Amino acid sequence: MHYTLVLLPSVPALFSSCSPAATEAMETFEKRKAETLASMTSSSPDKSPKGSIDEPIIPLLNTINSHPSYFTTSSCSGRISVLSHPTTTTSASTAKKKAKGGKWVFITHHKADPDSLLNLLFPPTSEIKPPTLTDPSDLVLRFEPLIIAIECKDVGSATKLVSLAISCGFRESGITSVSNKRVIVAVRCSIRLEVPLGGGGEGILVSPEYVRYLVGIANEKMEANWRRTDGFLSALVSSGFGGDEVEESGGGQPVNGEAGDEDSWIKSEATDSGDQLNLLSNGKVPDENHVGK
Amino acid sequence: MHYTLVLLPSVPALFSSCSPAATEAMETFEKRKAETLASMTSSSPDKSPKGSIDEPIIPLLNTINSHPSYFTTSSCSGRISVLSHPTTTTSASTAKKKAKGGKWVFITHHKADPDSLLNLLFPPTSEIKPPTLTDPSDLVLRFEPLIIAIECKDVGSATKLVSLAISCGFRESGITSVSNKRVIVAVRCSIRLEVPLGGGGEGILVSPEYVRYLVGIANEKMEANWRRTDGFLSALVSSGFGGDEVEESGGGQPVNGEAGDEDSWIKSEATDSGDQLNLLSNGKVPDENHVGK
Repeated sequence: MHYTLVLLPSVPALFSSCSPAATEAMETFEKRKAETLASMTSSSPDKSPKGSIDEPIIPLLNTINSHPSYFTTSSCSGRISVLSHPTTTTSASTAKKKAKGGKWVFITHHKADPDSLLNLLFPPTSEIKPPTLTDPSDLVLRFEPLIIAIECKDVGSATKLVSLAISCGFRESGITSVSNKRVIVAVRCSIRLEVPLGGGGEGILVSPEYVRYLVGIANEKMEANWRRTDGFLSALVSSGFGGDEVEESGGGQPVNGEAGDEDSWIKSEATDSGDQLNLLSNGKVPDENHVGK
Repeated sequence: MHYTLVLLPSVPALFSSCSPAATEAMETFEKRKAETLASMTSSSPDKSPKGSIDEPIIPLLNTINSHPSYFTTSSCSGRISVLSHPTTTTSASTAKKKAKGGKWVFITHHKADPDSLLNLLFPPTSEIKPPTLTDPSDLVLRFEPLIIAIECKDVGSATKLVSLAISCGFRESGITSVSNKRVIVAVRCSIRLEVPLGGGGEGILVSPEYVRYLVGIANEKMEANWRRTDGFLSALVSSGFGGDEVEESGGGQPVNGEAGDEDSWIKSEATDSGDQLNLLSNGKVPDENHVGK
């Protein structure tokens, strides 16, 4: 499937029935959108150190940007990473560790190669450590799913998008900002891993076997994240995004990205079994069991 | 500091300048609020298996509920848990594991006692396993921070609350639903742990030493979560919540819950160093480094 970026000119005539203030706000929206899309199609690198948009997410971004009420301001398609926090021991008797920034020693937006990570964490010759791991550092392995920030023309447009995203499994989506000028939506969900590995004064506290197991789970989560992303894209298309005639109402049938999903991690997240602190559509936190202490 | 729950009667006269539809919506808000607060103060257990509100969160809930534009619909003060997913091997050659529900084998809303968890995961006499761990199960240790769902009188009230929550470090907050009747805000942040421990066919894949290390980190995160919660409560009070005269504008100076915080985990989350996939206030995902594969 191929999507073409559509640059939308400022069309104040469309808003002639609005108040001057509203018209001005919308003109500004159109202007910001045109500028943002122009920078996306520019051949020069963007402001991130990576310098470009994650390739797997481009069809989704183009589809969102094809709708006159929305444009994407930033995104990540999902990633597996190991972050290193250099640690130093303070002179206090409590010997508390203090972070002084952090850096990635491993990052991929694709599935991770377990051997690459194992070679990094457990180098074959222990005397030759990779430069990134020469200092004692607390290491954390993470999986983080898709996240997109989207500016919306108004609160109504934002509400429709949040509702669609939540129905596709991006249940931590929400309107994060509303001002006279800008309405911002974040699309996100809770498919995550956050695993401290040790690595400071005490050395790495997990085994190579365990790291291989973790990478397997991280890769399953990446696949689940991609399936959910595909489901969101399908739901947007069903709602009229990306077509020649955009359906302003944003209706249509949301597609459940997890239908028929055999992945146990996703099952556990997509159901309302109460094992995640997600909110249900009625604004309730799922019931809690109170088993232990 | 003591807060008293204030039951607010339906006061349609206050909204006499509104349209009939808006008045009706607000009357419904007042009615729902009165019913919800009445159920909170009832001596009978609530609908959750735990049956009651987490004690540490009660001052915060009372403060939010003291404002005429808001009421809390559900909450969790933060928790450390181990979830068990029973696993069975399918007949397929891929031997994929399939989740059939899950249950908590450990949960606390306070700091966790490492010895309790160690005794559960590594019972002193290996022949006597606790009933919860007799079947092969994938175990996941989690820390999940404060989450509150709040119904707001209108989008303007919701926006102010989201803005205040984000300024206090609850950067994953947002308006999750807007309809004619109900506007729902979720207050949440990304202080988390999600650590698979093994426990299925392959047995537990981590050492007791590592579990003790994890519990230490989970307890640090619980403390950080409480500090952030306290900061949010202070910011609400500074904005006029909880006082005799509620300031409808919701202004005031937000308190940064992490000021002077020496906790390395929180430093890493509260700064914009790009190690978390949070959105900045300008709607941008923090810059990404592209280090590895």
